Amino acid sequence: MKAFITGAAGFIGSTLADRLLAAGSEVTGYDNFSSGQRRFVEHNLGKPAYRLVEGDLLDEARLEQAMAGHEMVFHFAANADVRFGLEHPRRDLEQNTIVTHNVLEAMRKGGVRRIAFSSTGSIYGEPAIFPTPETCPFPVQTSLYGASKLAGEALIAAYCAGFGFSAWVFRFVSILGERYTHGHVFDFIRQLREDPSRLHILGDGRQRKSYLYVQDCVNAILHALEKLPAGFNVLNLGTDEYVQVNDSVAVITKSLGVTPQLTYGGGERGWVGDSPFIFLDCAKMRGLGWAPQVDIREGVARTVRYLVANPGLFAQRG
Amino acid sequence: MKAFITGAAGFIGSTLADRLLAAGSEVTGYDNFSSGQRRFVEHNLGKPAYRLVEGDLLDEARLEQAMAGHEMVFHFAANADVRFGLEHPRRDLEQNTIVTHNVLEAMRKGGVRRIAFSSTGSIYGEPAIFPTPETCPFPVQTSLYGASKLAGEALIAAYCAGFGFSAWVFRFVSILGERYTHGHVFDFIRQLREDPSRLHILGDGRQRKSYLYVQDCVNAILHALEKLPAGFNVLNLGTDEYVQVNDSVAVITKSLGVTPQLTYGGGERGWVGDSPFIFLDCAKMRGLGWAPQVDIREGVARTVRYLVANPGLFAQRG
Repeated sequence: MKAFITGAAGFIGSTLADRLLAAGSEVTGYDNFSSGQRRFVEHNLGKPAYRLVEGDLLDEARLEQAMAGHEMVFHFAANADVRFGLEHPRRDLEQNTIVTHNVLEAMRKGGVRRIAFSSTGSIYGEPAIFPTPETCPFPVQTSLYGASKLAGEALIAAYCAGFGFSAWVFRFVSILGERYTHGHVFDFIRQLREDPSRLHILGDGRQRKSYLYVQDCVNAILHALEKLPAGFNVLNLGTDEYVQVNDSVAVITKSLGVTPQLTYGGGERGWVGDSPFIFLDCAKMRGLGWAPQVDIREGVARTVRYLVANPGLFAQRG
Repeated sequence: MKAFITGAAGFIGSTLADRLLAAGSEVTGYDNFSSGQRRFVEHNLGKPAYRLVEGDLLDEARLEQAMAGHEMVFHFAANADVRFGLEHPRRDLEQNTIVTHNVLEAMRKGGVRRIAFSSTGSIYGEPAIFPTPETCPFPVQTSLYGASKLAGEALIAAYCAGFGFSAWVFRFVSILGERYTHGHVFDFIRQLREDPSRLHILGDGRQRKSYLYVQDCVNAILHALEKLPAGFNVLNLGTDEYVQVNDSVAVITKSLGVTPQLTYGGGERGWVGDSPFIFLDCAKMRGLGWAPQVDIREGVARTVRYLVANPGLFAQRG
């Protein structure tokens, strides 16, 4: 496969690139390094099957030129700062919606007709059904991030109907593991590195979250591409379990060997738009024969080990 | 009420403006006259309660300045050319999604917190349930128009959650009546004015459509604003009946007194993204005490009479 990955220096994009290269695919990575990390791609530089293009997805000409000749696009670039959407209301629109339009247009002009897309369980807002299936009642958005990803999904579906594209849309829970560089587990570990005696938790700590280990996530994506037909496909992607934020705090503090005093922001949401409960029905993905290999607690523990071994990730973002 | 109407020179926007003025509201109309008609607003020019601002919704500074000091926004401007979306794939994104973001930002900056929005039954794609309720299973988009309106709804919902806005989102069937200037009933009448002996119908003519008369539509909007609380509200808006395209052809030809030879494009859809069946469950709106006064056939007949009496509308667009 000649694969084109947007967000190729990001957490999931770079992990996917490694896996595709290992499987014998040719990979072009596209990234503007706004949040991508050079350390996640530099081991591939110089490999004949790998090409890295430093570019912005808002630069349509550069994107079209880079994409030509590929067979499949993995559109994994995104603004994933769910929490701070309200502080810069145009960013999600631009980075998640308009950019997805640009990717689809570059595909159309370049004759590329297959796309995988990283969507999110956040598009369910605060659903009434748990675990939440892909076909749950028409959701109401609670965050600019969710709204922008829903718009991206909708554009992709319309290109499938109108231009004969095929799409595999994945609605992720939070993904954890090696190269994880944002989100509340990251924030907890950063706080504890700075002061092991205290940890501040947004909300009441009882928010229930599902997490998936990044290699299980990439397994699922590659498996779904193989098993599901052309057309528009949408799949929840998570584990069949969830934990309270307090549970992941316990795993983190135990892994680090610290016993901080815990303080809480209070309320059932960590911030406006935070979902008090994310738990997706992944029966459709499991029905294809995929199952996660790493459970949530082990995923959190591996994330802690990785971040402890790579303190530079904190320095860079601190 | 100090009302701000986008698309104020359009079919529904101008009808709403007349009704609000008659009810004693102050109205500012905003329109770029890309498809709006001066003849729909000129009778209001000079009224102390009416102000017309000629401006584009992509001009954020002008929009913010014009909107300041209003209590309620009716965001009715849109690219409504559903059929030709695939010929200019950026237009729906720009005119329906980005513009809605601009309207919301202008509201946020100007302290306006209430918005009514003209959405569409097209966002249900090709649903499995008829009549289709607001809470039907998560839809798959089949047109760029539907995708762009879904994105608009999602942005509005996120502003309600994040910034305390209140919204009344209306998912319309096709609206007919006085000032109707686009859509297939318009096209049929135009064809028959040019040559009463022939009429070409896209698809097989058996597409089933629901229509609502424009004054019933405006009644519903004003009624819902009164009856539904602050927060995010979404309402289907249509009649509890539908007709085949062939049925509306029969009403049109009878009204015009012509007996054309009918030819068909064939297939169950008039074009890619056309819904073979649009029929919305309007129980929620009816539960508020609203009911349409004009049925579909009478709505079509009134539309014919209006267009026959206003042939200039064809000349201008022909």
